[in-house]
Amino acid sequence: MIRIGIVGYGNVGRGVEAAIAQNEDMSLVGIFTRRDVGTVHPVFSDTPVYPISDLEEGKADIDVLLLCGGSATDLPVQTPSFARKYSVVDTFDTHARIPEHFAAVDKAATTASTTAIISTGWDPGLFSLMRLLEQASLPVGSGDAFWGPGVSQGHSDAVRRLPGVADARQYTIPVQKTVNAVRQGQGGFTAREKHTREVYVVLKEGADPQKVAQDIITMPHYFDEYDTTVHFITAEEMAAEHTAMPHAGFVIRSGRVGAEQEHKSLMEFRLELESNPEFTASVMAAFARACYRLHQSGCFGCFTPFDVPLGLLSPLSAEELRRTLL
Amino acid sequence: MIRIGIVGYGNVGRGVEAAIAQNEDMSLVGIFTRRDVGTVHPVFSDTPVYPISDLEEGKADIDVLLLCGGSATDLPVQTPSFARKYSVVDTFDTHARIPEHFAAVDKAATTASTTAIISTGWDPGLFSLMRLLEQASLPVGSGDAFWGPGVSQGHSDAVRRLPGVADARQYTIPVQKTVNAVRQGQGGFTAREKHTREVYVVLKEGADPQKVAQDIITMPHYFDEYDTTVHFITAEEMAAEHTAMPHAGFVIRSGRVGAEQEHKSLMEFRLELESNPEFTASVMAAFARACYRLHQSGCFGCFTPFDVPLGLLSPLSAEELRRTLL
Repeated sequence: MIRIGIVGYGNVGRGVEAAIAQNEDMSLVGIFTRRDVGTVHPVFSDTPVYPISDLEEGKADIDVLLLCGGSATDLPVQTPSFARKYSVVDTFDTHARIPEHFAAVDKAATTASTTAIISTGWDPGLFSLMRLLEQASLPVGSGDAFWGPGVSQGHSDAVRRLPGVADARQYTIPVQKTVNAVRQGQGGFTAREKHTREVYVVLKEGADPQKVAQDIITMPHYFDEYDTTVHFITAEEMAAEHTAMPHAGFVIRSGRVGAEQEHKSLMEFRLELESNPEFTASVMAAFARACYRLHQSGCFGCFTPFDVPLGLLSPLSAEELRRTLL
Repeated sequence: MIRIGIVGYGNVGRGVEAAIAQNEDMSLVGIFTRRDVGTVHPVFSDTPVYPISDLEEGKADIDVLLLCGGSATDLPVQTPSFARKYSVVDTFDTHARIPEHFAAVDKAATTASTTAIISTGWDPGLFSLMRLLEQASLPVGSGDAFWGPGVSQGHSDAVRRLPGVADARQYTIPVQKTVNAVRQGQGGFTAREKHTREVYVVLKEGADPQKVAQDIITMPHYFDEYDTTVHFITAEEMAAEHTAMPHAGFVIRSGRVGAEQEHKSLMEFRLELESNPEFTASVMAAFARACYRLHQSGCFGCFTPFDVPLGLLSPLSAEELRRTLL
């Protein structure tokens, strides 16, 4: 049995707790939290909850720690820090900061002879693997990724921070016409051409809807480069219709093969998820298995999904995989 | 530069010749053939052609041999044999015989300190990777693969061997209703429910169309478990409309995540290929790069796509991959 510890108990942490129950070769040692232990209520009533300080000595009986904090402030500190004592898996997803995160985690894990896999989940993670497979298989071509229809947590949070906003939920929606054009081999589309954004907002009492809408659609980086529609709804409507966390996405590449590049090839990977954090957690659990096996075979340091033979993700042995899945 | 040799010059061999030209870090040493060298006409006029016997001494200046023969009789002999002298990549695709092929190639490559990757291409190959990724990411769920619409070479050949048949082309077509049901999480479909078969036949003079049609639709394994439609056409129609070798396919898995498995997740990978052999060859070229790198780093023996970190397929360095594709 691979003994798993969960660090951080938000949506992804809860998803990991559920995912471990679906993998017969894994057992959950417990949830480790910064919060008061009594305030954490696990999904399954028999899951133990411990203060995060219990991990500090490095003596917890754990094979792999699954780090379920956020990429903005938690993981840049936690992943290198815990990698000094445990093998770890995270879902670090700030694409631009991956090189420095990798360097910090690699240094810690190499020094401590632990094994870390960073940036698992679906993007980065599965989508990264698809970008790579598609580009390696079709060197001549063009492609793109689309996200949605689904909820963007980052954009929802950005709207919630605006004055006058009591609650908000942002949906990212791919523009079907552009998806089709990418399938046909066209490229070079702008952010506005690829996705639209729909925002559902509950106003604070007395807030000016026109000003709030203006603040949203002009927000740099988050909304100014997109066509955004703002809908004002009641708190009751928000609670009734917008609590789910669905997401979806495509990775598409259209390439040309043949001596004169005369034959089109289309590769497309698609996800459609009723729960983004629970699926992310399920992918993370598979990478925990790979992390455990890499560590068992003496592979220390920091890895990304690109560095892991995919066979290590499966509970089946290499021989069973060749016999049943190849 | 990775120096490539092509063994066998049919559709896939020609595709590899074209694929090498698309990969800037590869150079083609030549085509090695059992045929009379003068009868082989490469796609590119400057590609050298050599007798296959030139490889026998094991002294050709080659990093990776791409074995482009058939799985029925060529590869079971050629792959272990050439692995005694060179690093090799093949597209062995007789699923049921993969374990024995692996064992034979592994023994040869391990003894000779060469590196072999077998069963590359798209099925086995990319589709195998997808089956694995989908099952590892969604342990609770069901899924299936579909092939087509596209030409099945094996089924076309089987019809061509029948008495009264001058030429034949067989198209495999997925049943859309079943594809949709698999997306919804249904499973357990029969061969007949998953695919239909369309056969275009040019009769020999004097052949009885009714008897030929009956011979086709009752042929064990190939057609008896499917709904098959037979069309009789002229040699001119065959030449005008059925020379292309398109193919396509999906690998779909619908799974459930969450504490009570209450949330659906759909994963789907799709290919749409105007030229099946040229795309297969393009994937093979990417695995040749991985084979070269594994060999350079002292990894000898037989590998399958499950055993290869996917980063090795890309011309980019691990650092570039983390920066640009993760």
